[in-house]
Amino acid sequence: MTIFSKIIAGEIPSYRIAENERCYAFLDIFPITRGHVLVIPKLEVDKFFDLPEEYLAELIRFSRPIAKALEKTFDCNRCGMSVVGLEVPHAHIHLVPINSIDDLNFSRPKLKLTQEEFIDIRERIIANL
Amino acid sequence: MTIFSKIIAGEIPSYRIAENERCYAFLDIFPITRGHVLVIPKLEVDKFFDLPEEYLAELIRFSRPIAKALEKTFDCNRCGMSVVGLEVPHAHIHLVPINSIDDLNFSRPKLKLTQEEFIDIRERIIANL
Repeated sequence: MTIFSKIIAGEIPSYRIAENERCYAFLDIFPITRGHVLVIPKLEVDKFFDLPEEYLAELIRFSRPIAKALEKTFDCNRCGMSVVGLEVPHAHIHLVPINSIDDLNFSRPKLKLTQEEFIDIRERIIANL
Repeated sequence: MTIFSKIIAGEIPSYRIAENERCYAFLDIFPITRGHVLVIPKLEVDKFFDLPEEYLAELIRFSRPIAKALEKTFDCNRCGMSVVGLEVPHAHIHLVPINSIDDLNFSRPKLKLTQEEFIDIRERIIANL
């Protein structure tokens, strides 16, 4: 069971943003910018493009209103998106409010936020959903 | 008319990988790795998440076999994906064969490939489609 499946199952807590039968979105606790969200399929698949095409389509449809909420919530040019997947063997989409190309650079140091900051960020995003 | 719309219209040449009524895929001529492909909607929209959700779904379905072909063609862990969009005001998906997180770092210097190398890369991808 991947760490993400444990998050979906509620065995590991998360700052949940949205959920439906097949998709789950929550705050990345190692964010590269404020408002960095992970969107994952409830199906445990390692490589993103190994997901069936209809599941990919559903993930991107599910991501759209979240991305729009991030664009409303944060002072950013737009919501960027990345799929890397080399660290956790459970496909995931990063949604990241960006102002520059470097805001999507995963090699840079992660932000350190307090629990209060995560709670505040989560509430602000959900208010714009 | 964006540079990408000119590419779709054939006014600017491109190393085309695949095309349907609504989507177009071609080699990025400023690649960050060999096999770096751009997938674009024929509809001229700046921000990716401003596309209607069914158009997003179609783009990701269209991208899937191309991503699988990249995984077959290149010595890589998997195909990564990024949407940044700060440079050309026409939504586009980057598909990039990756082995490390830094292979999706757009801040790093681009590869300089010859026309012969682009032609060879294009042919090898298409053979795996």
